[in-house]
Amino acid sequence: MQKILDYITENRGRFEADLTQWLSMASVSTDPAFAPEVRRAADWLTERMKELGLTTRLVTTNKHPIIIAETDPVPGAPTVLVYGHYDVQPPDPLDEWTTPPFEPTVRNGNIFARGATDDKGQMLTHLLSAEAWLRTGSKLPVQLKFLIEGEEECGSKSLYELMNGEYDNGKSIVEGLSNDIVVISDSSQFGPGKPAITYGLRGITYYEVRLTGPSQDLHSGAFGGAVTNPANVLCRIVGSLLDADGRITLPGFYDDVVDLTSVERKQFADLNFDDQEFMDKLGVDGMTGEKGYGTLERRWARPTFDVNGLWSGYQGEGAKTVLPARAGAKFSFRLVPNQDPKKVGAALAKYLKSMLPMGIKMELIDRHGAPGSMVPLDSPYMAAAAAAIASGFGTKPVFIRSGGSIPIVNEFSSRLGSDTLLLGWGQDDDNMHSPNEKFSLDDFHRGIQASAHLWEEIGKIPAKGNG
Amino acid sequence: MQKILDYITENRGRFEADLTQWLSMASVSTDPAFAPEVRRAADWLTERMKELGLTTRLVTTNKHPIIIAETDPVPGAPTVLVYGHYDVQPPDPLDEWTTPPFEPTVRNGNIFARGATDDKGQMLTHLLSAEAWLRTGSKLPVQLKFLIEGEEECGSKSLYELMNGEYDNGKSIVEGLSNDIVVISDSSQFGPGKPAITYGLRGITYYEVRLTGPSQDLHSGAFGGAVTNPANVLCRIVGSLLDADGRITLPGFYDDVVDLTSVERKQFADLNFDDQEFMDKLGVDGMTGEKGYGTLERRWARPTFDVNGLWSGYQGEGAKTVLPARAGAKFSFRLVPNQDPKKVGAALAKYLKSMLPMGIKMELIDRHGAPGSMVPLDSPYMAAAAAAIASGFGTKPVFIRSGGSIPIVNEFSSRLGSDTLLLGWGQDDDNMHSPNEKFSLDDFHRGIQASAHLWEEIGKIPAKGNG
Repeated sequence: MQKILDYITENRGRFEADLTQWLSMASVSTDPAFAPEVRRAADWLTERMKELGLTTRLVTTNKHPIIIAETDPVPGAPTVLVYGHYDVQPPDPLDEWTTPPFEPTVRNGNIFARGATDDKGQMLTHLLSAEAWLRTGSKLPVQLKFLIEGEEECGSKSLYELMNGEYDNGKSIVEGLSNDIVVISDSSQFGPGKPAITYGLRGITYYEVRLTGPSQDLHSGAFGGAVTNPANVLCRIVGSLLDADGRITLPGFYDDVVDLTSVERKQFADLNFDDQEFMDKLGVDGMTGEKGYGTLERRWARPTFDVNGLWSGYQGEGAKTVLPARAGAKFSFRLVPNQDPKKVGAALAKYLKSMLPMGIKMELIDRHGAPGSMVPLDSPYMAAAAAAIASGFGTKPVFIRSGGSIPIVNEFSSRLGSDTLLLGWGQDDDNMHSPNEKFSLDDFHRGIQASAHLWEEIGKIPAKGNG
Repeated sequence: MQKILDYITENRGRFEADLTQWLSMASVSTDPAFAPEVRRAADWLTERMKELGLTTRLVTTNKHPIIIAETDPVPGAPTVLVYGHYDVQPPDPLDEWTTPPFEPTVRNGNIFARGATDDKGQMLTHLLSAEAWLRTGSKLPVQLKFLIEGEEECGSKSLYELMNGEYDNGKSIVEGLSNDIVVISDSSQFGPGKPAITYGLRGITYYEVRLTGPSQDLHSGAFGGAVTNPANVLCRIVGSLLDADGRITLPGFYDDVVDLTSVERKQFADLNFDDQEFMDKLGVDGMTGEKGYGTLERRWARPTFDVNGLWSGYQGEGAKTVLPARAGAKFSFRLVPNQDPKKVGAALAKYLKSMLPMGIKMELIDRHGAPGSMVPLDSPYMAAAAAAIASGFGTKPVFIRSGGSIPIVNEFSSRLGSDTLLLGWGQDDDNMHSPNEKFSLDDFHRGIQASAHLWEEIGKIPAKGNG
């Protein structure tokens, strides 16, 4: 292992040069004007993989290519699928960048460029750690498979198509991606010097409800009180979905909720999350939520109900005495393991129907849904990741969850049966999706070291058989 | 009286010619392009009043002139103030008119033109009935004062300014308008052949509430459940203002409500209002409202709560997982006698404040308010109007209330201490404010007859002293 770490240390300068070169490619996936730059980034990565001796394919899609590469199989050892993306967010607004987004510049130990942390810099750590193993003549203790796409920032359409067998003469890519564990580095540490493993994601189920009353807007004087007002009804129904304790009122909603364990609650508490600092940043003088749970618990590990949009009647200046014909809302529930979006949807539909008064028609649209996911804290892969991070970063990682949802993680779980290790090397203030995106070079190098250790640690775990 | 009625019969043709001439003037008050036509209509009416020997003033304002005219005082007899307006709504959309809006055309006994019923045709009946009295050498049994404005369709600003003494060197017009009773014909009968007296109007108090949570929109995954969502709060609070029985939950809200008398309930029931026909017209399959009250009772005589507008977060296509920074609603209460808008506003402000959770700031805007009003059913003026209508229309009027609010009626009540008789000669399907506005010529002539009788009937009532 030492010679691998030595290689990493000796090549710091070259690794940074590689990163700089790659970050200078403007691989903005959403804007067709950048297509040649997207392709240049894909080719660059493909070339790097081939040079290292990986079996590499650049899969052409209807939009941007997907790179699939793998090292030699290691019989009896696990296979690790590294997922990442080489595309980046648009850099706008350009005039807010201190230095141009595609001219990577180092200031105060950080490299500033679009894609620095999301995800070129983070993703590259895993390829460079593989290089360290391979170039030192060490035998990689696991088989690595890389799945690096170019449309993560615009919906991953081609990747889903690829998984559905659209590009390989009907042959599904799924079998080729079989693995024992997925690794993604596309998120953040808990704070500076506080590396973290995200072991839980919330799910989501998102709805739109449209209520229709009379066939046209009516005068609220002549008709108010007699004709059912859809905006009144919308407020009453939507407003009833949370009770005074911040709990969701849908019958059976909490039946399948996996509650926080006492171990997790202690871990969260040990993170010493600063409520006041959080509130100051958000500009609020107080917070509310489900009774009996702290801020991090409510953000990461408890289900929620949030209205995302509302509309009805007159929204302009002044007053208009209208009894609106229509009212609508978009709202969503964040779900935690083991809640089933379909089951929540069925309970919701039944509840809304039961609340609907005479004179109102309802349309309920299921916008999208995905269950939450968890990697068991006692999994050997979790222990391997923790050990690797401790070695690479010089400090033990904290275990955190995330309130958001990452659809591809559900896809890996449902299509490949794989758990995912979310190992974020970034920081919350790295300006992902904002001007002046950055990535700490120290975190970059520590990420490479942690990754090199990760292959070693995972290599100690017996493979699942077909791994 | 007979010679007056004979005069009216003999002059049917000339009255229709007068109406046709007046309706041909495009006195659209809201559009400055029509200003010369507005002025032409004002001048025409002024000239007619002067010809009849009325003391007439055309008061110039910042916008359209106001006409004030009066007949000679009648000592010991009541003074009647006739209010009306000579301005009209814009005629758009022009291509939906069968014949041009300012080329009055008679079809099936109706005269079609913008302003036919609202309000030139209806208002003119009172001037023509005065003519019948004056031209036959009969002594008018009451003093008539006319207050005819030109901005009713665009807010009556100049009239309010005039009442505040802005145009007469600071001298308020209020004293000059003193009267025993106000008469307005600017509404509808209960149905064809069913003349009506509107003896009650609802009041209104209209609010806008704006809630602010975090200083900017947040990701509902990362923050949902921890940060108070203003759209959730808006729905909860607004949705709580009506209970399951359709009653308003503000403490004390019903304290001052004057309930329907058993006489009124019977009168309403006798109108045989057809719920099914009403629902068919509105396109609804059912209605809800305050428990224990019928449709007409809920429309005319019970207070209401209606959401008039709602907005928050994402209103576009598809789904956006946003925890909105802001949410807002416009809503109003229709009030019945003797509810005080200010008292309701105070109760509302207190209630909203008590419902506001941590992390949300509220702005409550009082948009406008006016109390409801009633003319006592047992007033001698009501009996006089009923007798006059019975004579003029050949059938007794029904007594109805209206769910809407007419601000000028409150003004007459609070500034002049006057009750108002709302004697509508129009029909609900006369297309007020819509293309193909019309007025039945039979109703026009019956209105003139009823008006002629009205002066006679009111003349039998002893004046209030300073009348």
